[in-house]
Amino acid sequence: MGNVHKQNLPMSESSRSRLHSDIEDAIEWLAQFGQAAEGGVTRLLYTPAWQLAQQALEAKMGQLGLAPYYDDCGNLYGRLSGTDRDMGVLLTGSHVDTVNCGGKFDGAYGILAGMLALRYLRETCGAPRRTIEVVSFCEEEGSRFPLAYWGSGNIAGRYSLGAVPEVADKEGVTLAAAMREAGFGQKRYPPPERRDIAEFIELHIEQGFVLEKENKTIGVVVGIVGQKRYTVRVKGAANHAGTTPMKYRNDALAGACAMVGWVERRAQNEPEPFVSTVGQLEVLPNSSNVIPGQVYFTVDVRDAAADRLAAFCLELRQAFAAIARERELTVEVEEWMDMAPVRMNPAMNAELAAICEAKRLPWRHMFSGAGHDTQVISRICPSTMLFVPSHNGISHSPLESSSTAELAAGVEVLAEWLYKRAY
Amino acid sequence: MGNVHKQNLPMSESSRSRLHSDIEDAIEWLAQFGQAAEGGVTRLLYTPAWQLAQQALEAKMGQLGLAPYYDDCGNLYGRLSGTDRDMGVLLTGSHVDTVNCGGKFDGAYGILAGMLALRYLRETCGAPRRTIEVVSFCEEEGSRFPLAYWGSGNIAGRYSLGAVPEVADKEGVTLAAAMREAGFGQKRYPPPERRDIAEFIELHIEQGFVLEKENKTIGVVVGIVGQKRYTVRVKGAANHAGTTPMKYRNDALAGACAMVGWVERRAQNEPEPFVSTVGQLEVLPNSSNVIPGQVYFTVDVRDAAADRLAAFCLELRQAFAAIARERELTVEVEEWMDMAPVRMNPAMNAELAAICEAKRLPWRHMFSGAGHDTQVISRICPSTMLFVPSHNGISHSPLESSSTAELAAGVEVLAEWLYKRAY
Repeated sequence: MGNVHKQNLPMSESSRSRLHSDIEDAIEWLAQFGQAAEGGVTRLLYTPAWQLAQQALEAKMGQLGLAPYYDDCGNLYGRLSGTDRDMGVLLTGSHVDTVNCGGKFDGAYGILAGMLALRYLRETCGAPRRTIEVVSFCEEEGSRFPLAYWGSGNIAGRYSLGAVPEVADKEGVTLAAAMREAGFGQKRYPPPERRDIAEFIELHIEQGFVLEKENKTIGVVVGIVGQKRYTVRVKGAANHAGTTPMKYRNDALAGACAMVGWVERRAQNEPEPFVSTVGQLEVLPNSSNVIPGQVYFTVDVRDAAADRLAAFCLELRQAFAAIARERELTVEVEEWMDMAPVRMNPAMNAELAAICEAKRLPWRHMFSGAGHDTQVISRICPSTMLFVPSHNGISHSPLESSSTAELAAGVEVLAEWLYKRAY
Repeated sequence: MGNVHKQNLPMSESSRSRLHSDIEDAIEWLAQFGQAAEGGVTRLLYTPAWQLAQQALEAKMGQLGLAPYYDDCGNLYGRLSGTDRDMGVLLTGSHVDTVNCGGKFDGAYGILAGMLALRYLRETCGAPRRTIEVVSFCEEEGSRFPLAYWGSGNIAGRYSLGAVPEVADKEGVTLAAAMREAGFGQKRYPPPERRDIAEFIELHIEQGFVLEKENKTIGVVVGIVGQKRYTVRVKGAANHAGTTPMKYRNDALAGACAMVGWVERRAQNEPEPFVSTVGQLEVLPNSSNVIPGQVYFTVDVRDAAADRLAAFCLELRQAFAAIARERELTVEVEEWMDMAPVRMNPAMNAELAAICEAKRLPWRHMFSGAGHDTQVISRICPSTMLFVPSHNGISHSPLESSSTAELAAGVEVLAEWLYKRAY
């Protein structure tokens, strides 16, 4: 990974205070594009609001002294060219798309932090040895089309414009048609796949409240958890709530509740970042005076270790089968999501930890319990993430908020790391 | 209660076999009125289908030698006059209304059984000393209007035509308007309130599967359980399923499932007929990757003993509060139904038990876990019920079924009891 620059990036108090006001202004500025009437920000992939936001970012990149360009998938880059063209590119950034009525920080922060860091480096230190780029990934959420990481997936070769998945939005518009309509997928721009990236770093809000609860400013992300998701179908016998004695019941809800209890108890016994959640549950016929005959529920299981995930899920199937057997119910467990956990780069994390220490910023190692573009990019280069606190852990909501001081601290750490790596 | 006739009602094998075919035919005949296109029988109070059924029963009563008459609420009676006008009336029967797409036995059986028993007594033994009447209660289910027992309630003085409750059906038609439209509530018929009934007996299908499971033909009903129903609201904090560690969760569904588990375990420890059921449960926001923030569920609790019901419900509130406290959730428990248990008349039951023994019919004492008109009529006179088996315990469904032999056995026991009391 080469040497790390020994000097620290010079930053005066006035520069730091300018950074404070600039990151705050930038967040507000970008939130204008796609502002939803119901509150929050809505920028679904390839929609007019999304196009306006990318065009605004493109113009802003130019103003900040970065050379903007698109790839043919719609990812937008701002380049600060290095003097040594043989060295791999340092890439930072995040995604510009949002969920429906999302918050103004999710995704946006990582792009704007990268742009401000690059401007500062350019203004303060001139051209780097190594080329640095900031990226605005065209899509992460999968809010319009039923697939996530379309932008980073094309960069990393997980998806290809030569084989666009046949998916459509709620109105029946296909991904291919929406992309063409927005001006992409027609070879007007360079192909999205990249082989020249040396390292990638993404700043993001935590989307949880661990940093806030523990009074930490920076989370250095050790890994992104793997996920498995299941739908569980429990069948018993619907019967009259008054005339069916307790001993003759095959109550699907009572059985499902025993399973939910198992999931919770068992997950509490696992070390962090293991989590497991029953978030959705439906009862049939769902009438106060009828013993439930059927229950459907989901189980979401996440962990940093693939083997622990697999072991839990095997045990879950056995435990559910035993609960069903004992109660004369039937149970089916269907897996519909299986994503492997991803490790972030330890060397990068060591550098980031050292920077936090030097800056006397309270920080901790942590796992990301949510998915991010970084897990996709990490297939092609050493990658990591930094988190800043989310107030009350709220995300994907107009109520999303992070303090300006903490957002600015994230930009400082990023700038410092880019300086040490690129100059 | 006076003496019981020492002789048995004469019944030849040919009479018994005629009873078999007659009860089967009668059930099919009455099921024509209100036959639903979707299957099953729909006779909602005061609708044209209901009016046709009552008119058909009125005509049939006349054919069987019973003098038919309505009261001003719409209850229909068929009278077999006794020679001693000073003795109170023996009343038997059940309700003619059904739930939407109900079965052909519920309610109908009790009316037709009474009519066939009275015809047999009249033909075989002539006029009784004591007047006997069969009643077709105009309403028990509460399927059209949000109140149950309107017919028997008017007889027993629980409701009054002078103060019709201000309720309306789904189309906005009021109970008062529907009654007038059907020709009742205009003082054209005698007022429904009765003070001349000496004893009441109702035959009904069990609506459960206890008799079938235990190979009994007759259930002699000891009492009708009391009921309490609750809505429970559990509030926690909705959070991201991936980024919220297990130790920081306030999962409303996990808490609710612990409560459901308590309800089941605790109810299993109570003696029969105690039952308690969580039949309905709703989760918010009900998304696989969000920790549930709120859960609503119902609890239906039934027992023969009012004090045990009350004690359970007090303990339930304490247990739910403790579960909520431990998990940092809030819980509200709202009672929206409270019906006291009702005892059937022990002397009547002793006579019925003796009749079953004499006829060598397998029988048992049992509680009714469902409500019936008898609990209302029992306010004004000694009352009881007889149950016959329901195949698989199915009721309020086109799949409702009871065997002809068991239906006929019920009519025989009824006829025998009426004979012993009235002749």
